[in-house]
Amino acid sequence: MGILDLVPYSFIIGFLGLFFALFLYSLIKKYPKGNKLMEEIAEAIHSGAMVFLRREYTYISLFVFVVFLILWRLFSIYTSLAFLTGAICSMSAGFIGLKGSTRSAVRSTQGAIRGGTPEALTIAFLGGSVMGISVAALGVVGIGIFYFFTKNPSIINGFAMGASSVALFARVGGGIFTKSADVGADLVGKVEAGIPEDDPRNPGVIADNVGDNVGDTAGMGADLFESYVGSVIASMVIGSTLTPALNHMSLPLLLIVIGLVASILGVLSINILKNINPQSALRNAIYISGILFLGGAFFSIKAILGSLNVFWAVLCGVISGVLIGLESEYFTSGPPIKTIAKSAQTGSATTIITGLAIGFQSTILPLLTIGATIFASYKLVGPYGVVLLEKNPVSNMTPDQAYNLAGLYGIALAAVGMLATIGIVMSTDSYGPIADNAGGIAEMSKAGSNIRKITDKLDALGNTTAAIGKGFAIGSAALTALALFSAYQKTANLSSINLTKVETVVGLLIGALMPFVIAAFTMKAVGKTANKMVMEIRRQFREIKGLMEGKAKPDSDRCIDIVTKGALTEMILPGLLAIAMPLLVGFFIGAESLGGFLAGATASGVLLGIFMANTGASWDNAKKWIEEGNLGGKGTKVHAAAVIGDTVGDPLKDTAGPSMNILIKLMAVVSLVFAPLIM
Amino acid sequence: MGILDLVPYSFIIGFLGLFFALFLYSLIKKYPKGNKLMEEIAEAIHSGAMVFLRREYTYISLFVFVVFLILWRLFSIYTSLAFLTGAICSMSAGFIGLKGSTRSAVRSTQGAIRGGTPEALTIAFLGGSVMGISVAALGVVGIGIFYFFTKNPSIINGFAMGASSVALFARVGGGIFTKSADVGADLVGKVEAGIPEDDPRNPGVIADNVGDNVGDTAGMGADLFESYVGSVIASMVIGSTLTPALNHMSLPLLLIVIGLVASILGVLSINILKNINPQSALRNAIYISGILFLGGAFFSIKAILGSLNVFWAVLCGVISGVLIGLESEYFTSGPPIKTIAKSAQTGSATTIITGLAIGFQSTILPLLTIGATIFASYKLVGPYGVVLLEKNPVSNMTPDQAYNLAGLYGIALAAVGMLATIGIVMSTDSYGPIADNAGGIAEMSKAGSNIRKITDKLDALGNTTAAIGKGFAIGSAALTALALFSAYQKTANLSSINLTKVETVVGLLIGALMPFVIAAFTMKAVGKTANKMVMEIRRQFREIKGLMEGKAKPDSDRCIDIVTKGALTEMILPGLLAIAMPLLVGFFIGAESLGGFLAGATASGVLLGIFMANTGASWDNAKKWIEEGNLGGKGTKVHAAAVIGDTVGDPLKDTAGPSMNILIKLMAVVSLVFAPLIM
Repeated sequence: MGILDLVPYSFIIGFLGLFFALFLYSLIKKYPKGNKLMEEIAEAIHSGAMVFLRREYTYISLFVFVVFLILWRLFSIYTSLAFLTGAICSMSAGFIGLKGSTRSAVRSTQGAIRGGTPEALTIAFLGGSVMGISVAALGVVGIGIFYFFTKNPSIINGFAMGASSVALFARVGGGIFTKSADVGADLVGKVEAGIPEDDPRNPGVIADNVGDNVGDTAGMGADLFESYVGSVIASMVIGSTLTPALNHMSLPLLLIVIGLVASILGVLSINILKNINPQSALRNAIYISGILFLGGAFFSIKAILGSLNVFWAVLCGVISGVLIGLESEYFTSGPPIKTIAKSAQTGSATTIITGLAIGFQSTILPLLTIGATIFASYKLVGPYGVVLLEKNPVSNMTPDQAYNLAGLYGIALAAVGMLATIGIVMSTDSYGPIADNAGGIAEMSKAGSNIRKITDKLDALGNTTAAIGKGFAIGSAALTALALFSAYQKTANLSSINLTKVETVVGLLIGALMPFVIAAFTMKAVGKTANKMVMEIRRQFREIKGLMEGKAKPDSDRCIDIVTKGALTEMILPGLLAIAMPLLVGFFIGAESLGGFLAGATASGVLLGIFMANTGASWDNAKKWIEEGNLGGKGTKVHAAAVIGDTVGDPLKDTAGPSMNILIKLMAVVSLVFAPLIM
Repeated sequence: MGILDLVPYSFIIGFLGLFFALFLYSLIKKYPKGNKLMEEIAEAIHSGAMVFLRREYTYISLFVFVVFLILWRLFSIYTSLAFLTGAICSMSAGFIGLKGSTRSAVRSTQGAIRGGTPEALTIAFLGGSVMGISVAALGVVGIGIFYFFTKNPSIINGFAMGASSVALFARVGGGIFTKSADVGADLVGKVEAGIPEDDPRNPGVIADNVGDNVGDTAGMGADLFESYVGSVIASMVIGSTLTPALNHMSLPLLLIVIGLVASILGVLSINILKNINPQSALRNAIYISGILFLGGAFFSIKAILGSLNVFWAVLCGVISGVLIGLESEYFTSGPPIKTIAKSAQTGSATTIITGLAIGFQSTILPLLTIGATIFASYKLVGPYGVVLLEKNPVSNMTPDQAYNLAGLYGIALAAVGMLATIGIVMSTDSYGPIADNAGGIAEMSKAGSNIRKITDKLDALGNTTAAIGKGFAIGSAALTALALFSAYQKTANLSSINLTKVETVVGLLIGALMPFVIAAFTMKAVGKTANKMVMEIRRQFREIKGLMEGKAKPDSDRCIDIVTKGALTEMILPGLLAIAMPLLVGFFIGAESLGGFLAGATASGVLLGIFMANTGASWDNAKKWIEEGNLGGKGTKVHAAAVIGDTVGDPLKDTAGPSMNILIKLMAVVSLVFAPLIM
């Protein structure tokens, strides 16, 4: 019995991963929750998040049910079951992640009080790991089970579509929630009333903290889960056209199993690393997992395919993920933020202009990295296809076609390589909002400046891991979208997507337009909902006697209710549009035009996504740099100008920007699923 | 002797057009210049503009000379002469336009004093017409002469490249100049010192007024001249592949001759229209020319081709130009600006967020209009190609190929249709900066509030015509870029630009990146140069005794010098990049990849261009709406927030945005010229 015979049993490793996540969760629960006030605040955040999630999932379930029926009617019960499973897995990932993060934040604050930085860090990181490992394990379980039963990639596609549909609603809804709450709370609290961030008198503060969880944790989780699943399935679809199909279809699944194991080992390593400085601890955990994964990938690729070409593509993906992360880090915490901070000296207008310029500039390196990655992985694996063809001649296939197929397989595997260690990457990324919340709870429960200093330090580190995580999310989304685009070509049997045809050009233009449309909807939604928050918070400050004096409590639930309603109403139209547009183009103009559409959407979506994420993050960090005491520090005009930049950046970096990732993948996966009908 | 035999003599009509422009100029010069102060101010603006132009043209001439030698070496003396002529024509258009606008502004102010609105309007419009008619006539002269001598489209390509190269430098340089001056003068004058716009004590005011001329008049002129020439030449290139080639090559030239004559008649009609309200006067002049042009086009297409299919494509172009103009008008002066103004009530951050959302949204209709136009004109003219092939069978050509060729010819002619009446469109557009300057001169020379009211009204009208003009510039740039893209395909002999190949996808990604790169450079340049202006103006306020009391004069020349240097230094890199990148992609990756590159650049450039132009213009008009007394009017917090929006919008709408138009056309035309070497 060789390694190949074991692959169908991968789902077992997936279940073990889930148990490990549960075990982590039980570890967290053992830590003390702190005093009564802290417990109360944590409970308010937890229940707010759960209320939002329950209402969001009600909407999504309705949608999932309708699509389930449609897919059943159009394809088969298997495809629609796969869709349903994908949706359930994605929702579960969000649910588990939220549980992990809301339960660990307060314990991390208490950890800072009890055991200082190491304990606070460990708890926050464990909380993030619940999310990280669950996402990775759920992917292995879901894909593994369908692989075990069907080994048919066109059915497994449905799983990716389920994951993607939920992801869009979760990302868009979560993004609108978090930024409406944030902007609304800040505008009235910090700017008008002059009280600090996270001040318990502000009725919007709990909503803001809930938002960090539903947006940054649940939304990000759904996003990366989608990339992860999408890249594996795209490489299975393309792999199934190579000979022997079984080996090429098994490999991506095997790779993520290795990645899951490597991630678990990385999480465990934090136990040894926690006493060195936190930044190195997180970074080293990622490196350990990465090296373990690459080692495993090397041997299994050699064993299954007997050639190392594919390994180089996987390596390209891993390197590219690291590079894009570093590039984001440079633009969002390196010298450019000082340039922005300095431009704040001449007011908020120049702050915004400089930030936009830097945001535009920050697209250059990541895009070239993505371009180089797909080019290299295509060229590295292409020749392998020709060798394969010589070994197993296939009628009707020319060496050029074989080269092309293998090359596309290479691109898809680069994406898998980038995403295989998602377990550990997501753990360090989810750590961020937990540390942020822990700081918020410290502030609200008046835990004292010593404790606040610890949580501030961990929070600042969280901003860096978040920037890297966002860069990673965008890079992986781009590669996954391109891999899905290739899988679409193969499934729709398109030998050419020809830009000399007007249909393809029109498709390209409409596709490139889509990210702008979604950006318009999501930005407007934040503006509208934040405005309602502003009105409500102003009303409470005005009408609730003794609120400003700290004698009465604000009505936080009302604020949560407003942003929940706003988020849920405003997520529907962009969501439906993202699903409907590729179908409209495909059925009314044609399969080739849809190819142009996907290419256009990917190019413009990736660029806008990077631009938005980096612009927003660099304004945020420019403000923080000033708050550290530079250029006069807090309370100066320079700081006020930087705060405006930060506020403008909020919906860009946390609502519209991340929606781009989902949009391009979702549209590609919808096209992939419907390709057999469109052709 | 039929109409076809007359076409080669078109250049004669072009010369007549130039004489007409000279005649208009002489008419303007006959009007009185007003009192000594007015004359002084006007002279300062005029000489500032001329100094900038002289220095800018020195740089450009050097560049043109080098490229002239390269083209001579690589192609032939004819191509390089065509390039030189194109460059000279574009520079002449800028020069003549600047003369017209700087000479007429002060006379328009004096006209308001002497004869009220009708006289002020007439003079400003005449000033604009000098530019408008010159641009149209120079195009006819240049293309006409080369057509007369060579009838070889691959030589005439050089003419388009000459026009495009100059246009890029003029647009980018002019854009950096105008907005650095504007932002710098406003930040210190309006915001810090609290003195009104155009206050003569502000050392940056003359530079700001010079900027209106070099950016909005000379820059816009070069931009539209490029579209105009590019669309005609693209349709000649494609037309030369249809049978009989001569008829199809002659038609575009004939169409712009008709358009020139129609424009001249439109300009003359203002003499009758000037006493009705100014808005209708300008609009009716455009309609008169449009109808005359369509009538002429109808009969000449029937006479030359014997089929009306092509006429419908021309009609599509005309309608599409009007639609895109109306769409821009809606987003930049309709209800959306009130939404922005209202969001200014919660501060500058929400003003910016709402403006960005509306800017994203404003891309939808124009892009769909462009998509529909190319789709319709392709489908309308395609069948004509099949009929042609049946009449004159060509070996090696299938009906599908014939359909494709004719369809592409249709797209190119839609662009020609949109641009043929450029004479009148440009006249009404250039009217804007003249009215703006006339207002500035009225303010600086303290002409009294009655006069200021007249000039304000004419200035406001100028903002609307400018928005329409910008929409038109973007629409025509998109169509022209697509036409040039088609011409490139034909010249490089590409039967397919296949997005299933990784080279094409990489080309597409890099192409889509280019507009972001240019946006980064131009925005940064404005930030940097404006900052230098701020320092200098602050220094003058501090060091020049009696300046604020109006007892001493500011050193305006120093400010002009700073922005001139900034503009000239910062325009070089983006300019060279725009020329080098298509060549690098073409020579190092391949002709097909370059095809993907151009498609990606066009899609992302058009979208970013519309987004930037409309976002900026709507912030500008939201501020103006508040200044009319709404939501509290001037001096309130709401107004201050709107001013921030306006300032952020300045470089977007007048520097980075317009650069997009040029970029996509220039890269396409460079590819077209070098296509024979790249293939």
